Amino acid sequence: MPILTRPTGRPNFANCADKPNSQARSGADMMSPSPCHSSLTMKELNQRIIEMQYAVRGPLVIRAAEIESELKQNVKKPFNSVIRVNIGDAHAMQQHPITFIRQVIAACTYPPLLDCAQFPSDVRERVRLLLGDCGGCSVGSYSASVGLRVVREHVSEYITRRDGGVLSDPENVILSNGASEAIRSLMKLFNHPGPDGKPPGVMVSTPQYPLYSATIAEYGICRIDYYLNEEKNWALDVAELKRALEEARPKCHPVLLCVINPGNPTGQVLTRANIEDVIKFAHEEKLFLFADEVYQDNVYDPDSKFHSFKKVMAEMGPPYSNMELASFHSASKGYMGECGLRGGYAEIVNMDPDVFAQFKKSISAKLCSSVLGQIAVDCVVKPPVPGEPSYELFAKEKAEVLKNLHDKASMISEALNSIKGVKCNKVQGAMYAFPRILLPPKAIEKAKSVGQEPDFFYAMNLLESTGVCIIPGSGFGQKEGTFHFRTTILPPPAVFQDFIERFTKFHEHFMSVYG
Amino acid sequence: MPILTRPTGRPNFANCADKPNSQARSGADMMSPSPCHSSLTMKELNQRIIEMQYAVRGPLVIRAAEIESELKQNVKKPFNSVIRVNIGDAHAMQQHPITFIRQVIAACTYPPLLDCAQFPSDVRERVRLLLGDCGGCSVGSYSASVGLRVVREHVSEYITRRDGGVLSDPENVILSNGASEAIRSLMKLFNHPGPDGKPPGVMVSTPQYPLYSATIAEYGICRIDYYLNEEKNWALDVAELKRALEEARPKCHPVLLCVINPGNPTGQVLTRANIEDVIKFAHEEKLFLFADEVYQDNVYDPDSKFHSFKKVMAEMGPPYSNMELASFHSASKGYMGECGLRGGYAEIVNMDPDVFAQFKKSISAKLCSSVLGQIAVDCVVKPPVPGEPSYELFAKEKAEVLKNLHDKASMISEALNSIKGVKCNKVQGAMYAFPRILLPPKAIEKAKSVGQEPDFFYAMNLLESTGVCIIPGSGFGQKEGTFHFRTTILPPPAVFQDFIERFTKFHEHFMSVYG
Repeated sequence: MPILTRPTGRPNFANCADKPNSQARSGADMMSPSPCHSSLTMKELNQRIIEMQYAVRGPLVIRAAEIESELKQNVKKPFNSVIRVNIGDAHAMQQHPITFIRQVIAACTYPPLLDCAQFPSDVRERVRLLLGDCGGCSVGSYSASVGLRVVREHVSEYITRRDGGVLSDPENVILSNGASEAIRSLMKLFNHPGPDGKPPGVMVSTPQYPLYSATIAEYGICRIDYYLNEEKNWALDVAELKRALEEARPKCHPVLLCVINPGNPTGQVLTRANIEDVIKFAHEEKLFLFADEVYQDNVYDPDSKFHSFKKVMAEMGPPYSNMELASFHSASKGYMGECGLRGGYAEIVNMDPDVFAQFKKSISAKLCSSVLGQIAVDCVVKPPVPGEPSYELFAKEKAEVLKNLHDKASMISEALNSIKGVKCNKVQGAMYAFPRILLPPKAIEKAKSVGQEPDFFYAMNLLESTGVCIIPGSGFGQKEGTFHFRTTILPPPAVFQDFIERFTKFHEHFMSVYG
Repeated sequence: MPILTRPTGRPNFANCADKPNSQARSGADMMSPSPCHSSLTMKELNQRIIEMQYAVRGPLVIRAAEIESELKQNVKKPFNSVIRVNIGDAHAMQQHPITFIRQVIAACTYPPLLDCAQFPSDVRERVRLLLGDCGGCSVGSYSASVGLRVVREHVSEYITRRDGGVLSDPENVILSNGASEAIRSLMKLFNHPGPDGKPPGVMVSTPQYPLYSATIAEYGICRIDYYLNEEKNWALDVAELKRALEEARPKCHPVLLCVINPGNPTGQVLTRANIEDVIKFAHEEKLFLFADEVYQDNVYDPDSKFHSFKKVMAEMGPPYSNMELASFHSASKGYMGECGLRGGYAEIVNMDPDVFAQFKKSISAKLCSSVLGQIAVDCVVKPPVPGEPSYELFAKEKAEVLKNLHDKASMISEALNSIKGVKCNKVQGAMYAFPRILLPPKAIEKAKSVGQEPDFFYAMNLLESTGVCIIPGSGFGQKEGTFHFRTTILPPPAVFQDFIERFTKFHEHFMSVYG
């Protein structure tokens, strides 16, 4: 098995005269090469765009797509398929959609289906309720910028139920194109220098989901990294939060603390005590809290339980129950996996009302999020209940997906831990494992000699020789001198097995070359 | 009919202790008032968020919603319904969706519908083609950040057809959540100071669609206003472009010229000669061009014709055919009116390839636009053709919508011009009229005495006394000392008539009070 050293996979554009996005025309005039007079070159480009990185869709994924098309063109490879474990994209990995969600969306889109006997009565009722809240009874109308009222009410009812009676107000709920959009538009609010003129500082974990680092870089905000404790199954130590904050204080004005729970890419589930400590810390330091809880349905470890930040804050009572918090959820993860529909929401509590009004104004120029995405959220927060005609099938489908994920969550850490030089924490929740790989000095040297991060070098070699597409730990952040990668647990059982086999074989070979 | 003076309609939030987004809990602990310790107040808020305004969803629209709920609660008013002519939201105004679009989206969402006899064979074929390009054959999978390949190919074929053979490359097409998102993410690229350290300058028309002013304010870019010539039916004079540029040069570094054609809010359609002049001007000044062409299907004037900037540039030959251009289209307007589905695209030609790669990276953190929105775009750019089973119904539905809009476009200017003190240019295209109102000095004085823009005062009075919701010209920009408003031409015939009557009556009364 050859160990290849490739460039980073950056697309190889030709020069200006025949650049791929130049126009061509049947007449010859559009084809004639002409000198380049771009008004916008790399020099004039917004430099923050250059700085931002989003590894989940980075060079490895671009190269994976190239390899796929090479395979289609019968280019000979030591493998016959690409296994994409780079992104939490469940349906792309053959996970089936939930019938109830799809029937509601289909009939909302094409209401003559309400006469279709195939659609149960609870689907039809839901469709009527939702369309009644759409302008002209059409999903083609803009909703309010914050989303359809009825969906926001259902979100609130869901949160109240989930949090054992801690009330939620629909006025505090905004719907968005996935959780990402809500996170991005809320974080924008904080982009203001502190009283001392220092830039605002946002605390994010290392490792973190690169939406955060990308957004922070794009906004020119100061990133304050706190390390999760790998030795304690990626726990969030408050002492580490304090260290990070104190170290950052001279260069920025800390305003916001972001926590991902269950963790991405790390798969840990925070304990209730841990969450309390984090809340106390945020209160002490007057930090606004972002709780990214999009994996709240994805807890596999029988000893772990999901606790929402909102519920814990409420149960702690004042002053903690008066703290500012935005929490996020999505139709893209859980057992639904409806990534392409782009449905998400944020609940924002205790925000200064004037600021909240400004926030709502700021999202109005984007008009509204996808109404069909909003409807997906509705189905997620108000699924069929026992006694309703869709319930049985819904419960079966949901249980099946979660059972599969549960099984793969334990299988993956077992399989990885059985390989020499790989160490993987328990996957308590979410959809990923983030194992550590002990790279030999010779491999690190080799990587550096070709100008690559060692884990990138490792991942690109894995891709080229086996077709397995993982994301190197450097895309998420990791302690200096340690190397990891993120893999999803999503492939269907047969592919999952194949993935483990290809990976094991590669790793052993790699170690024999560089060990 | 009373002439009321109201505050701007800004929501009246209570103070911190009982602010509407505070939590409540069955236990008393969450309810106890406590001192306000917001970490994010108006002082710490990103000040650009405060500066940005989006009048189309501003205070008048908030007040209109309040009035609607007052009417529901049987509050007595001199009218029994609100007429919303504030926003180009066709389905909310009873325009019917196009069956083909809805059948394709419904069956893509719920593929068992492929067995449904109700769905014609061309719908089923399209669904199979589209699903074949989705990961796991599901619209629940993420697409590439730039959108589904097959849709981008269809967009390119559409553009090539529309532009009489000027080739388009699918690599240059990106799909987005409506045209707005593409405009916002592309404009972000230009946010970089010039070589002299001056802020970047973006040229936009006055009047303009406030997405532009809002985005420019949010990004902290310098806005360069050029005035459209009301006396020449809102034509775009190059002399005025030059004046605006020269005046702005000392304070900024001009980089981008935005043109909306057909015009929003002004409804004009640029002549080919006018477009040529604009292109020459942009070339001379090394400006990147944005052509907002979302109303390309909405041309009503028999003497007008839509010419795309891309086609004109290509036909002019080098050096113009090598200029950088981004043009935008959408599923939200035209005869489709599918605003809620959030489907749009940009075609970007002659962009520096390195910059283009950076742009694609920058949108990757947002993952992808709504896949169902992308599918809506597919139906728009590749509608049924003669001989296909869906063609006849499609053609009938499309013709009906466009005929209605055409009729209302002429009716509105006639009706408005018949009112003393109102002057309306011909509505050649798009979905709006932007009449001038000659406000008497006493009305202007009165408005100023209550701290309002005169046209805002007028519009708010119209709303309070008749239920008609228009948007004041100050939300779009207008020549100092002139006053306008924007109204859509979308209400169905009976409502349209009612709107004209209510408006006429109000205007006459207003003039008699202040004239």
